[in-house]
Amino acid sequence: MNIYGERFKISIFGESHGPAIGVVIDGLPPGFAPDMAKVKAEMARRAPGKHALSTPRAEADSVEIVSGLLAGKTTGAPLCGLIRNQDVRSGDYEERKNRPGHADYAAYVKYKGFSDHRGGGHFSGRLTAPLVFAGALARQLLPGIEIAARSRDDLTQAILAAKADGDSVGGIIDCVVAGLPAGLGEPFFGSVESRLSALLFSIPAIKAVEFDDGFTLAGLRGSASNRTEFGILGGITTGKPLRFCVAVKPTPSIALEQDTFDLVTGQPAKITVEGRHDPCIVPRAVPVVEAAAAIGLFDLCLSAHEYGTGGFS
Amino acid sequence: MNIYGERFKISIFGESHGPAIGVVIDGLPPGFAPDMAKVKAEMARRAPGKHALSTPRAEADSVEIVSGLLAGKTTGAPLCGLIRNQDVRSGDYEERKNRPGHADYAAYVKYKGFSDHRGGGHFSGRLTAPLVFAGALARQLLPGIEIAARSRDDLTQAILAAKADGDSVGGIIDCVVAGLPAGLGEPFFGSVESRLSALLFSIPAIKAVEFDDGFTLAGLRGSASNRTEFGILGGITTGKPLRFCVAVKPTPSIALEQDTFDLVTGQPAKITVEGRHDPCIVPRAVPVVEAAAAIGLFDLCLSAHEYGTGGFS
Amino acid sequence: MNIYGERFKISIFGESHGPAIGVVIDGLPPGFAPDMAKVKAEMARRAPGKHALSTPRAEADSVEIVSGLLAGKTTGAPLCGLIRNQDVRSGDYEERKNRPGHADYAAYVKYKGFSDHRGGGHFSGRLTAPLVFAGALARQLLPGIEIAARSRDDLTQAILAAKADGDSVGGIIDCVVAGLPAGLGEPFFGSVESRLSALLFSIPAIKAVEFDDGFTLAGLRGSASNRTEFGILGGITTGKPLRFCVAVKPTPSIALEQDTFDLVTGQPAKITVEGRHDPCIVPRAVPVVEAAAAIGLFDLCLSAHEYGTGGFS
Amino acid sequence: MNIYGERFKISIFGESHGPAIGVVIDGLPPGFAPDMAKVKAEMARRAPGKHALSTPRAEADSVEIVSGLLAGKTTGAPLCGLIRNQDVRSGDYEERKNRPGHADYAAYVKYKGFSDHRGGGHFSGRLTAPLVFAGALARQLLPGIEIAARSRDDLTQAILAAKADGDSVGGIIDCVVAGLPAGLGEPFFGSVESRLSALLFSIPAIKAVEFDDGFTLAGLRGSASNRTEFGILGGITTGKPLRFCVAVKPTPSIALEQDTFDLVTGQPAKITVEGRHDPCIVPRAVPVVEAAAAIGLFDLCLSAHEYGTGGFS
Repeated sequence: MNIYGERFKISIFGESHGPAIGVVIDGLPPGFAPDMAKVKAEMARRAPGKHALSTPRAEADSVEIVSGLLAGKTTGAPLCGLIRNQDVRSGDYEERKNRPGHADYAAYVKYKGFSDHRGGGHFSGRLTAPLVFAGALARQLLPGIEIAARSRDDLTQAILAAKADGDSVGGIIDCVVAGLPAGLGEPFFGSVESRLSALLFSIPAIKAVEFDDGFTLAGLRGSASNRTEFGILGGITTGKPLRFCVAVKPTPSIALEQDTFDLVTGQPAKITVEGRHDPCIVPRAVPVVEAAAAIGLFDLCLSAHEYGTGGFS
Repeated sequence: MNIYGERFKISIFGESHGPAIGVVIDGLPPGFAPDMAKVKAEMARRAPGKHALSTPRAEADSVEIVSGLLAGKTTGAPLCGLIRNQDVRSGDYEERKNRPGHADYAAYVKYKGFSDHRGGGHFSGRLTAPLVFAGALARQLLPGIEIAARSRDDLTQAILAAKADGDSVGGIIDCVVAGLPAGLGEPFFGSVESRLSALLFSIPAIKAVEFDDGFTLAGLRGSASNRTEFGILGGITTGKPLRFCVAVKPTPSIALEQDTFDLVTGQPAKITVEGRHDPCIVPRAVPVVEAAAAIGLFDLCLSAHEYGTGGFS
Repeated sequence: MNIYGERFKISIFGESHGPAIGVVIDGLPPGFAPDMAKVKAEMARRAPGKHALSTPRAEADSVEIVSGLLAGKTTGAPLCGLIRNQDVRSGDYEERKNRPGHADYAAYVKYKGFSDHRGGGHFSGRLTAPLVFAGALARQLLPGIEIAARSRDDLTQAILAAKADGDSVGGIIDCVVAGLPAGLGEPFFGSVESRLSALLFSIPAIKAVEFDDGFTLAGLRGSASNRTEFGILGGITTGKPLRFCVAVKPTPSIALEQDTFDLVTGQPAKITVEGRHDPCIVPRAVPVVEAAAAIGLFDLCLSAHEYGTGGFS
Repeated sequence: MNIYGERFKISIFGESHGPAIGVVIDGLPPGFAPDMAKVKAEMARRAPGKHALSTPRAEADSVEIVSGLLAGKTTGAPLCGLIRNQDVRSGDYEERKNRPGHADYAAYVKYKGFSDHRGGGHFSGRLTAPLVFAGALARQLLPGIEIAARSRDDLTQAILAAKADGDSVGGIIDCVVAGLPAGLGEPFFGSVESRLSALLFSIPAIKAVEFDDGFTLAGLRGSASNRTEFGILGGITTGKPLRFCVAVKPTPSIALEQDTFDLVTGQPAKITVEGRHDPCIVPRAVPVVEAAAAIGLFDLCLSAHEYGTGGFS
């Protein structure tokens, strides 16, 4: 289901080429005055059309808050943020051919042919815009906690080269979170890794999540591994910085002609994905990863209640 | 919280050195006659004390089914499986020193000093026994679906060498699932990767989860990546085999002396973890990974309902 | 939290005098073509300002569907329905006096003074409009199942008399559901009564829920009670018609002067609730009760899966 | 599903005549030392076989705590309480005739003939024993909050008369909760009435739940109703005592011969329910109602977190 969270619940809706996308956020404390300039700055980091490396689709991505805010402060009731889709050219996607590397076929089967195919519909990376909006709010509610992600490599040359070839590239994003208290997370099914990875794997194109250099650890001896400064042990934060990275696959929409098939007839076909696409989504995915971390960690913070054995204090 | 699942709910309880561990399973279809020999075989794959490479702690790990089964068939009501702890030597763990690489400190903070420290308590790898039990049931309810995990490398020499040094090693486990229909999973927060990774990261010592060779994909161009046979796209199964791997960190309990501190006093200390520990948990983690996959996939199958727009059929 | 449902999830947002109210609906099967005329008819039954007995506040209550619908058919992705608030006169409610019988004080404490007080904010009966919208969709997905509620008494004379006095009245609503199959519901915490009552008690002003003439049954002997045609036994539907009733308290907003206190200062005060209010909400609550029944029962139907012990069929 | 709660999660399992019944409780704060004498006293209030008015089935109902407790204090991990079934005489129930007023037929359909029919199986009132156990723990974590239920009428004469006739009676239980702070509960779907009623309707035989004299209010004018001392308004506690009542139907198991049918063949039959049954379950249901109130209210208290807009404090 399209709902995330235990205490800070996020419900995302919308399709890439429908009237609007958005998010309902339940669990914001009352009386919180979001710094909307900061929210806009986060949205801008993710927005398309900003520079030579990104898709020319220009969406203002301005969020209308239709509930939960009064005189600039949260009321405690659910906050709904709505983003109208504006620069939509459905013609680009009208064919019902399967785009290789996309969810088209899986969605076609799952939804019995009724899914909104245009621009990936509900499976579009565009749905990360409301996620960034929610994350920008969560982040402001984590004072003293720093979340910083960045692309592992300088990708500029690789991106320009791929673009010139009508191709695309992927990459790895590293993220560090400092300032977390020890004791967040729940044992077993509610481990910090479980809850963050569930959210990170919701982001389209992310195919791997590694905490605390997990693959490197797997090759060490215990005596060396034990000297690692773990941000999470037993699924619980240790008070040390939390580190994770994610693998982002290359943008599947490329200008090169590819072999595929028609979803309706099943017949083989050739496809050249025309729309407007990033040759690499890694730069725009960086703020999305930070947003996911903020949402997941704020939810964990809310769960770390302080109702004691002596009742209300 | 210690509950997993949407339609096939697993609730795990117990501590390593308490009276018992177990699991309540809600969502088993009625009339299912589990093959208990197969269940025992799965439990035996995970059980300690079987060979030279594993801890000599010998637990029969026999499961008493105390509810939900009548004349060998499920009733539809919750099934509770109970495993008594038998070969417990608490003396091994009575100290309140932090064991490097373990959850001791994080649990101590989280539970305000009241966590059951003995043998890792609720954070012990022993809690994977009820997970394997639940997985062994789920697996039998996935006819035609094959789940096979294995250690990526021949670890025998490395394990013996580490053991001789009083040290330990980790490793990587690959898993393939064949026979899944297309269309399982939910968009965004309910992606197959989200739901499986949440469960896999519940397994102690797992620090990374990668689907469809994600880190390799991250280094490819889109034109090459798109030729991958993806088991999951857009969070939804494609009908192709699902492939993932997990990184297992080395057993943190080692015989070598390590620097640490006392949890109660905070004073520096030396520690030699005495108990009985595997020099490498990878072999025993293989059936646990398969069990997690079976549980997560069976839950996803139950969610792929067929109530149509025409009502009950 | 503001989310209802296991398999058919409803997430409601909005305040009476904010920009908009609405609902996100997750779990609609794909390919469903809602009859929008029927949806409008249900909305009209609940809408204010229709006749002499109801508040003159005139809201078109037209729903904009901003996601989840393509060419008139559901896509399978979440459907968001948005209702703009139009005829808002906040001045009517600007005072921060506690309105007797309203949630004002409880909300003031809960939200630390930041709740949207205007028109009851998120606690307004206006939030039942998106519920009716969701119910109107659910209802169309329950072919062969009839849901019919009605006011127990002819209330017209009592309403007119109360209105003339600047006062209000309550009432009882009976509801019958015919055509349900046997076997819906889950034992213990998922009983049909549990799930329906949780939803019915969400409707503002409802203070009692009785199934199968429960209070009458309480006074019978078992030999007589056992002859009742129960719609639910053990929390599970029997295949017989389901019958329940709800008690609706009188509209708390009345024109008569009442004693109260100022929420901010705590000082005693007099209040005359000026806005525009129904002298009796029972007639408008009838379609809301039907909508709640449709939502709850459709969710229960989706949960009554047919994945068997032999796997996918 | 058989799980209740947002922050204080209760998972109940077992059948009346199976090996054991029990409960897994997740969300107990660490370091809580339950007064086991008080727990036993609550269990004894519900236990059968104590006096002339109750079934002679004598169950010790002693609870073995198999996890989550160390040296008499909660560890913070899930606590599992196990109650062995001892005095079981399955012969009493071996027939597969439908017992009028029982869940037999509904369960038979739901579970496709595989439900445990003996003594009502999972639908038995015996499953309220683990509920009382959980409630007895929750209650001790609500210092300053008094929960008191009692039968509305002196039922002794009616019970003895019904028993003499081989018949049974029902009744009404009133409950008052004093000492609750204002502000508990969530708007709309998480109203206090929603959450408590969901739990109360889980108790077998309860067919109606009324808060704050709801049916009486329905007959008042608003000017009178508004003078009620409401314990709940808008779904949120007001700080005033919370009052509710429940209707309990008569014990359906009676010694008198009744018309019924055979579940397997569908043929008409006569039945005389032989087992050992209470002529009235109201006295034993009183502590069950209190336990349900304690569980629901403790869960609501845990949800009323105090994480503010300034982060951890």
